[in-house]
Amino acid sequence: MSMITLGVADLDRATAFYEQVLATPPNKTHDGVRFIELPGVWLSLYPLAELAKDIAPDITAIRSGFAGFSLAYNARSELEVREIFGRVSTIGGRIVKPPAATFWGGFAGYFSDPDGYYWEVAYGAMFNFDEQGALLPSAAA
Amino acid sequence: MSMITLGVADLDRATAFYEQVLATPPNKTHDGVRFIELPGVWLSLYPLAELAKDIAPDITAIRSGFAGFSLAYNARSELEVREIFGRVSTIGGRIVKPPAATFWGGFAGYFSDPDGYYWEVAYGAMFNFDEQGALLPSAAA
Repeated sequence: MSMITLGVADLDRATAFYEQVLATPPNKTHDGVRFIELPGVWLSLYPLAELAKDIAPDITAIRSGFAGFSLAYNARSELEVREIFGRVSTIGGRIVKPPAATFWGGFAGYFSDPDGYYWEVAYGAMFNFDEQGALLPSAAA
Repeated sequence: MSMITLGVADLDRATAFYEQVLATPPNKTHDGVRFIELPGVWLSLYPLAELAKDIAPDITAIRSGFAGFSLAYNARSELEVREIFGRVSTIGGRIVKPPAATFWGGFAGYFSDPDGYYWEVAYGAMFNFDEQGALLPSAAA
């Protein structure tokens, strides 16, 4: 798996949100898709109607209810989790579950982006990362 | 970004599908979540109702219509794209757009998984990968 594409209502709004919350360098645009190249996987942002059309002409580009998935960012410390949540609410996101200790021994919370997609931001001592910042297989821990 | 969690109706069905289509080693289960550790990002599978509950108690765990996103796997060749689509329909997926030349100079198609989530499988000569198979930043190309 190499990319996730989110269909968004407002491409500039979504891009500004993700650049700030992920603290990434300026994004790249190809053929109307904004690419935010994260370690190990690219996040791409595309107008919802365009994404639906790219998949199949018979998909109705209307979202309602729970999209059924969540994305996760593994932070390097509890402090980094807190810093991200500190930014989220000032830049157009919504804090859904404030960060707190989790049942699995970590520290995590959820926010939703301007389009209502859910992200978990978590710290857990059991997670390890490579030099680029991508999550390592657990066997390498 | 380090994980994507898909809320699924049948955890065993979804796990079997992804193990076959991605040709991954046996998955790991922690606290009821199935983890498929891919290069650079983990795919996790979780019963839809459990995922909704983990995010917030007021989310209704019912999906309808277009979820609004797609996942992508970048293959190493047109042949690998064809091989993946050859497996998809025999293991419970649905071919939404058979692989063909794309407007951006690649070769790609879409399938949907047993829960109706969309994947693009694409080959493009402009994409490069690290030793583990994770997509490299385009600047490194």
